[in-house]
Amino acid sequence: MQLGLVGLGKMGFNMRERLRAGGHEVVGYDRDPQVTDVSSIAGMVEKLSPPRTVWVMVPHGEPTKSTIRELAGLLESGDLVIEGGNSPYSDDQENSALLAEYGISYVDVGVSGGVWGAANGYGLMAGGDAADVERVLPVFDTLRPEGERARGFVHAGPVGAGHYAKMVHNGIEYGLMQAYAEGFELLAASDVVTDVAGTIKAWSHGTVVRSWLLDLLVRAMEEDPELEQLQGYVTDSGEGRWTVEESINNAVPTPAITAALFARFASRQDDSPAMKAVAALRNQFGGHSVKPNDD
Amino acid sequence: MQLGLVGLGKMGFNMRERLRAGGHEVVGYDRDPQVTDVSSIAGMVEKLSPPRTVWVMVPHGEPTKSTIRELAGLLESGDLVIEGGNSPYSDDQENSALLAEYGISYVDVGVSGGVWGAANGYGLMAGGDAADVERVLPVFDTLRPEGERARGFVHAGPVGAGHYAKMVHNGIEYGLMQAYAEGFELLAASDVVTDVAGTIKAWSHGTVVRSWLLDLLVRAMEEDPELEQLQGYVTDSGEGRWTVEESINNAVPTPAITAALFARFASRQDDSPAMKAVAALRNQFGGHSVKPNDD
Amino acid sequence: MQLGLVGLGKMGFNMRERLRAGGHEVVGYDRDPQVTDVSSIAGMVEKLSPPRTVWVMVPHGEPTKSTIRELAGLLESGDLVIEGGNSPYSDDQENSALLAEYGISYVDVGVSGGVWGAANGYGLMAGGDAADVERVLPVFDTLRPEGERARGFVHAGPVGAGHYAKMVHNGIEYGLMQAYAEGFELLAASDVVTDVAGTIKAWSHGTVVRSWLLDLLVRAMEEDPELEQLQGYVTDSGEGRWTVEESINNAVPTPAITAALFARFASRQDDSPAMKAVAALRNQFGGHSVKPNDD
Amino acid sequence: MQLGLVGLGKMGFNMRERLRAGGHEVVGYDRDPQVTDVSSIAGMVEKLSPPRTVWVMVPHGEPTKSTIRELAGLLESGDLVIEGGNSPYSDDQENSALLAEYGISYVDVGVSGGVWGAANGYGLMAGGDAADVERVLPVFDTLRPEGERARGFVHAGPVGAGHYAKMVHNGIEYGLMQAYAEGFELLAASDVVTDVAGTIKAWSHGTVVRSWLLDLLVRAMEEDPELEQLQGYVTDSGEGRWTVEESINNAVPTPAITAALFARFASRQDDSPAMKAVAALRNQFGGHSVKPNDD
Repeated sequence: MQLGLVGLGKMGFNMRERLRAGGHEVVGYDRDPQVTDVSSIAGMVEKLSPPRTVWVMVPHGEPTKSTIRELAGLLESGDLVIEGGNSPYSDDQENSALLAEYGISYVDVGVSGGVWGAANGYGLMAGGDAADVERVLPVFDTLRPEGERARGFVHAGPVGAGHYAKMVHNGIEYGLMQAYAEGFELLAASDVVTDVAGTIKAWSHGTVVRSWLLDLLVRAMEEDPELEQLQGYVTDSGEGRWTVEESINNAVPTPAITAALFARFASRQDDSPAMKAVAALRNQFGGHSVKPNDD
Repeated sequence: MQLGLVGLGKMGFNMRERLRAGGHEVVGYDRDPQVTDVSSIAGMVEKLSPPRTVWVMVPHGEPTKSTIRELAGLLESGDLVIEGGNSPYSDDQENSALLAEYGISYVDVGVSGGVWGAANGYGLMAGGDAADVERVLPVFDTLRPEGERARGFVHAGPVGAGHYAKMVHNGIEYGLMQAYAEGFELLAASDVVTDVAGTIKAWSHGTVVRSWLLDLLVRAMEEDPELEQLQGYVTDSGEGRWTVEESINNAVPTPAITAALFARFASRQDDSPAMKAVAALRNQFGGHSVKPNDD
Repeated sequence: MQLGLVGLGKMGFNMRERLRAGGHEVVGYDRDPQVTDVSSIAGMVEKLSPPRTVWVMVPHGEPTKSTIRELAGLLESGDLVIEGGNSPYSDDQENSALLAEYGISYVDVGVSGGVWGAANGYGLMAGGDAADVERVLPVFDTLRPEGERARGFVHAGPVGAGHYAKMVHNGIEYGLMQAYAEGFELLAASDVVTDVAGTIKAWSHGTVVRSWLLDLLVRAMEEDPELEQLQGYVTDSGEGRWTVEESINNAVPTPAITAALFARFASRQDDSPAMKAVAALRNQFGGHSVKPNDD
Repeated sequence: MQLGLVGLGKMGFNMRERLRAGGHEVVGYDRDPQVTDVSSIAGMVEKLSPPRTVWVMVPHGEPTKSTIRELAGLLESGDLVIEGGNSPYSDDQENSALLAEYGISYVDVGVSGGVWGAANGYGLMAGGDAADVERVLPVFDTLRPEGERARGFVHAGPVGAGHYAKMVHNGIEYGLMQAYAEGFELLAASDVVTDVAGTIKAWSHGTVVRSWLLDLLVRAMEEDPELEQLQGYVTDSGEGRWTVEESINNAVPTPAITAALFARFASRQDDSPAMKAVAALRNQFGGHSVKPNDD
C-alpha cells in the first residue's frame, strides 16, 4: 500500500527500504536532504492519495508532538497516523485526541529490532482501534519478521498499548543486559575461568541463557575479547525510567529492572556523592581513613 | 567411545540416550532398577576396558562425593572421571585431589539445557587439564548441540572452571528469568495492554528480548495464559546463592542477580518478618494502623 | 500570634495543643464537630484579624487543593497560607501561583514527628520567600523541639523546598526502617542469637545504630517480643514513591530506598505474579516441580 | 577486677582508659612499645593472678587466631578469654574448642561505638555460657554506657552469639548509612532545596530519622558542607559481607543491606566491567554510540 514516512534516521531509513522491498509505495520525509524524498511534510502529504497513511518515526517528545500537530493541519478526515517512535504511552492519548478532532485515526506502535530490523524484520506491538490496526496490517506484515504473524506482531490493546508494551519490552531488555553484564564481570574478576570470551560464546547453543542478546555479546567480544576498548558508560533513553515509574504506579516490585537502571546512572558519575557521605560517616565514628579529593 | 555413567535421572537418562544415538557404548548405573544397566557401580566398572572413562551425574554434595570416593577405590591409574552434576566449583579441588592420589584424572563439566538437551544438545563448560579434556572430546561432541563446537562447548580453564562457568551461567539465568517475570507482572498489573499473552508471544521474533527463555514463557502461557494454575513459589538449588557469594568474594556488584535470588526467598515466605518490623515501627511513630495477625 | 488551622486529625489536633501551650491563639477548623472550634472555614477566617495566617493540615491531593481554593476566595491580599500536609512538592507551585493571584503569600512546610511531636516538638522544613518564612517564625519556633533552632527547623529554599525536604526525609525513613527490619529478620531466622529482643534493646546506647527508630522498635518488642501479633503488611502513603521518582528524574541511584519501597509492595501481595512466571519457566526448561494453585 | 588486654589500637587503647577509670586493674599488651604495659603476652599473663581474664582486641583472622593459640599455651585451667574483635562468628567455635581443651573458658563479645566509646561507653553483645558471662560482668558494666544495663549490653546467646549480633548490627549500619547517603545525594542533585546542609541539620531533633549517625553526618557537614574534600571511595571490613552471606544461608531477603554493600564495591571501581558489557550490547543492537577508552 501507499504510505508517508516522516523520519529517516537509523530506524526510519531502514524501514523505508524494507517496506519498498515488500512492494509498498513509500514517500519519505526527513530534514536531511540526503535521504528525503520530498522537501517538506506538506509535500509528502500532497503525494499521497486519500485515505492516507502516515508513519511518524522521529525522536519522542517535542519532535514527535510537533510532527503530529503539523499532520493534524495537513491531513484530512479518514486519514490515519501511525506513531512508531519510542514515545511514552502517556503521549498517545494526547496525540490521538488531537487527531480525532480532525477525524484522523491514530495507531501507536512499538518497534523493536534496532539496526538489525532491516534484515530480520522488526518486532511490532500496536495499540489502537481494531479497524485502524486492521487497515494498516499490510504495512505491519512487511515490517515484521517472516513466519507466523503472532510471533512478531501483536495488537496489544487500545491506543497507548503499543508504546506501553514497548516500554515493558525495553524494561525487560535493561534487566537482561544487566544480568549478562554482571555474569561477565564476575567471570572476568575471578581467576578460575581462564577463557571468559570462549565461555560466553559456548553458551550460544543448548544452554538456558541463549538469546539474541547473548549472540550480540559474543559478537562484541570477538572484536574486543576483554571489552577494553570502551568505557563502562551507559546512557538511557527513557523506557527504563518509564518502566520503573509505571511499576511504582502499579505497586509492582521490579528490583532487577531498577537495578539495571541505577547501574546506568552510576556508570555516568565521576564520583558518587552518596559514597562521599558514607565515607564521611565512617571517618566520623570509626576514624576510618578516607581518600581526600585531590581535584 | 566407551564410558560409564553414574546417575540416570532427568539429566543422565537423556544423556545416555543421546550418547548411544551418537555411537558411544554407555554402561549406565542408577539405584533405580528400572533404568540401570548394571546392579552396582562396581559392576559398571567391570564392564569397562581401561583406560576407563566414568561420567558422574548425581545430585551435588554428599551423593557426588560418595560416588567419587567409591570410584577412587574401583578405578585405576590412567582412568578418568567426569563430574557433570551441579556441584559448587569448590568441590572440584577436593575431588580432583582425591582421585589424583590414585592416578585418576578428573574433568568437571557444567551441563546446561535441562530436559530439552536430549533433543537440542547440551551446552557444556569443561574444567581440567588440556590432555584430559581432549581425551573425552568425542563424548562432549556428541552431547553438545550440532554445529560449531565453540558455540556449545568450552574448555573454560583448569579443574573447577567448568562448574564455575556453570555457576555464573545459572546466576545469569536467575537474572534473565527475573527480568521477564517483572515485565510480565507489570503488563498484567496495568490495564493498558489487554492482550498480555499475545504481547509476550509477539516478542518471539525480531525483538531485542527474544531468547529461548522467552520461547518457554510463551509455551507456558499457551497452556495457561494468565499463569493462574500455579503458585508464585520458587525454590532454588544452589547456583544462584553461590553466584552471589562469589560476587561478594570478588567485590563484584551483582544487584540484578541478587534481586532474583531474594525474590525467590520472599516467594517462599508466608509472611515477611521484616515487614512485621516495618509495620510495628509505623504504628509506633505515626499511629498507622496495622493488620493484626488472626492466626 | 494568631492563626487559623484547617485539619485537626492526628497531626493537626496535637499541633493546636502545642501551639496554644506556646501562647498562640489558634482557631481550628475540622469537619469533625467534636474537635472543631468553628463551623466552617469561612467562620474561621472571620475570627482572624488581617494580616491573617492559616495553616492547612489536611490529607494531600484533592483535600488540600480544595482547601487552598476555598481559602483563595476567603482570604485577602497580605494574608499568608502555610501548607503543612504531606503533599508532593510539585503541588506547591500550583498552590502558590493560585494564591499569588489574590496577593496571598504561601509557605510550604514538611512536618515530621508523628504522634510524638506533641510532646517532643516537630521537625520542620520550610519552603518559601524569606520574608514570608520570617513572618511565621514564631509559629515554627513553638512547634519545633526546644533547643537550637537549626537542629529542628530549616528554611530549606523557595516554595516547594519544604515538601521536597520532607519527601527526602521520608525516603530515608523508608531505608532506615528496612535496614532495621532486615537485621531483625536475620536475627530471628538464625538460631545463633537466642535473645533477639534483648539484642536489639542492647543497641539503644553506645552503638553506631542507635536512633529514635531503634527506640521505637525496642518499644514495640517490649509489647510483642517476636512481633507475632501483627502481619507483615505495610502500606505506603506517597513520599517513598515520590523519592524514587525524583531520584529517577535526577539520575540518582537510590537502591536501598527503592528496595524498601518494593518490599512494601510485595508485602501486600497474596501471591507474586512475577514468581509465577519464574516457576513456570523452571518447570518448562527443567521439569522442576511447581506448586499448583488450589484456589 | 584484674584483666589482661591484648591489642591497644584505636579500640583497645580507649577501652584500657575506660576500664582503669572504672577501677579495674588492666595489664595491656601491644606490639607497639609506645603503648604497651609489658613486653610480651607471656609477660602480661605472668602479671595476672589466677583465675585470669584476658581480653583479646586485635584484628580478626590470623592475628586473633594466633593470639588465641598463644594464650592457650600460657593460660591455665579456670582462666577465661574474652574475644572482642570484629571476628566472624564462625571463628568462635574454633577458638572456644581450642581453649576448652586446656580448661579455659571463652566469651565472644561484639563491641560497637568506635572512637566515641571511650567517652560514651560501648554497646556490648556477649556470647558464651551464662556463668562465664556473669563472671566478667563487672568489666562489661564499666565498658558499656551508663544507665540501664539492658540498653547497652546483652548476653545474646551461646558462644558465637556476640559476634553474630555484632555482624547483624554492622549489616544494619551499612543499610542506615546507605539510606542517609542516598537522601543526601538526591538533595544535592536537585535544585529545589538550596540549603542541603541546613536541611540535614534540621533533622537532628523531632524528626523520625534522627539518630546518632545523623548527628555524625551533621558534624561532617559542618566541617565540609558539600563533602567535596573527600572521595566517594568506601572500603569494607567484613561484617557487611558476612551479613549478606548469612542472609543467603538463612534464605532471608536483605535487599537494602546488600545494596549498601554493592554500592561500596562499585565505589572502588575506576570503571565498571559490567557497564562495558551493557555499552557493548547497546552498540551492537542499536548502533548506540559508546565512549571509547582512551587509556
